[in-house]
Amino acid sequence: MSAPVPALRALVFDAYGTLFDVHTVAALCETLWPGKGEAITRAWRAKQLEYTWQRSLMRRYQDFKRVTEAGLRYACAAAGAPLADDQLRRLMDAYLELSPFPDAREAIAALKQRKLRLAILSNGSPAMLRPLVKNAGLREMFHAVLSVDELEMYKPAPAVYRLAVEKLELPKGAIGFVSSNCWDACGAKSFGFRTFWVNRAGAPLDDLGAAPDHVIATLAELPPLVAAGA
Amino acid sequence: MSAPVPALRALVFDAYGTLFDVHTVAALCETLWPGKGEAITRAWRAKQLEYTWQRSLMRRYQDFKRVTEAGLRYACAAAGAPLADDQLRRLMDAYLELSPFPDAREAIAALKQRKLRLAILSNGSPAMLRPLVKNAGLREMFHAVLSVDELEMYKPAPAVYRLAVEKLELPKGAIGFVSSNCWDACGAKSFGFRTFWVNRAGAPLDDLGAAPDHVIATLAELPPLVAAGA
Repeated sequence: MSAPVPALRALVFDAYGTLFDVHTVAALCETLWPGKGEAITRAWRAKQLEYTWQRSLMRRYQDFKRVTEAGLRYACAAAGAPLADDQLRRLMDAYLELSPFPDAREAIAALKQRKLRLAILSNGSPAMLRPLVKNAGLREMFHAVLSVDELEMYKPAPAVYRLAVEKLELPKGAIGFVSSNCWDACGAKSFGFRTFWVNRAGAPLDDLGAAPDHVIATLAELPPLVAAGA
Repeated sequence: MSAPVPALRALVFDAYGTLFDVHTVAALCETLWPGKGEAITRAWRAKQLEYTWQRSLMRRYQDFKRVTEAGLRYACAAAGAPLADDQLRRLMDAYLELSPFPDAREAIAALKQRKLRLAILSNGSPAMLRPLVKNAGLREMFHAVLSVDELEMYKPAPAVYRLAVEKLELPKGAIGFVSSNCWDACGAKSFGFRTFWVNRAGAPLDDLGAAPDHVIATLAELPPLVAAGA
């Protein structure tokens, strides 16, 4: 007989792509560069993440706003698309007003009713996260909105996930972590959290030596899963 | 007046894509999965590198052979392309018999004549690098063939570049580093090497807080540049 799984007392969420839909940024790319929007969006996202990993390994941290801007500049240069200052500003401003996924609002409300402590743990800098959560009207739903910025180190370094343990003042085993990025869920699992991968796109599982405990298709599956003792 | 630049006494090369042409692997992908070869090759390379960065940050090292295999499995799953064991083996075997770029052979011979100590520093595991260099008939050209494997940490972590300092027993300032991966050249520059980015594809510069000292289009430009005191 295996030991009983301790009850979750907190759930920590990734922000971009997990709670907040980045679709409006992609749509704006297509408006600005017709026919190239999808390629630029994909290259932008890829480069943004590469920079977070490479800079973390190089110990040359730069905050997420600047890394995101640098990723956009690269993506436009690679696509041969001119990028004016006001275009860059419009795209970065769009990041501050992303809508939560409809299933995110509902899941958050349901989990909050279950007396779970909720938090956000994001690569985003405080200057990006504060207006994002406020504009969505979600600030009072979260016990804490945590940024990697104070550590100068990005996900999936264990130090990032440890931040949630320290700020929530709960043991690892009582914390669940939710991300739509498989590698982020793997990083959280590797650290010791119970993890939920929101596989919205039906992507293959990443092979990182620590698989997520649960794979769900939308956040709507989360409250019943947690209620059932996941 | 700025201080004179000390003469280079050694040149350290990245392997895959820098000295060795991975084109045959891409061609084999197209043979195995007609019409999907390019997409699979691109996704494979991207995932292979992501895994190196993510696993380094997670402290869950797995050697480059296994990371490369895992990247291929992911790429095939994402493309809906079945991957049989013997197909995986053929592709991994192709990695052991890559040809050096024509400009690589000539540059190595020219640099060797100038009494420069030459080395390879690669993410590749020793079991991948040893046959690769031997099959190309280049073993006697290199003072050392160094793998990150003994560190259990991938590029661009500074510890990787430090390995070359230790094995070559030369100060940082006397070592030049050559890579076709901009982020690798940036990592080496950030560590303290004089760096040469071989920008074969005409890609934009990565913004990683440490730009390469020299950007060249092919390795043929390297010997005259070094001769001129670069």
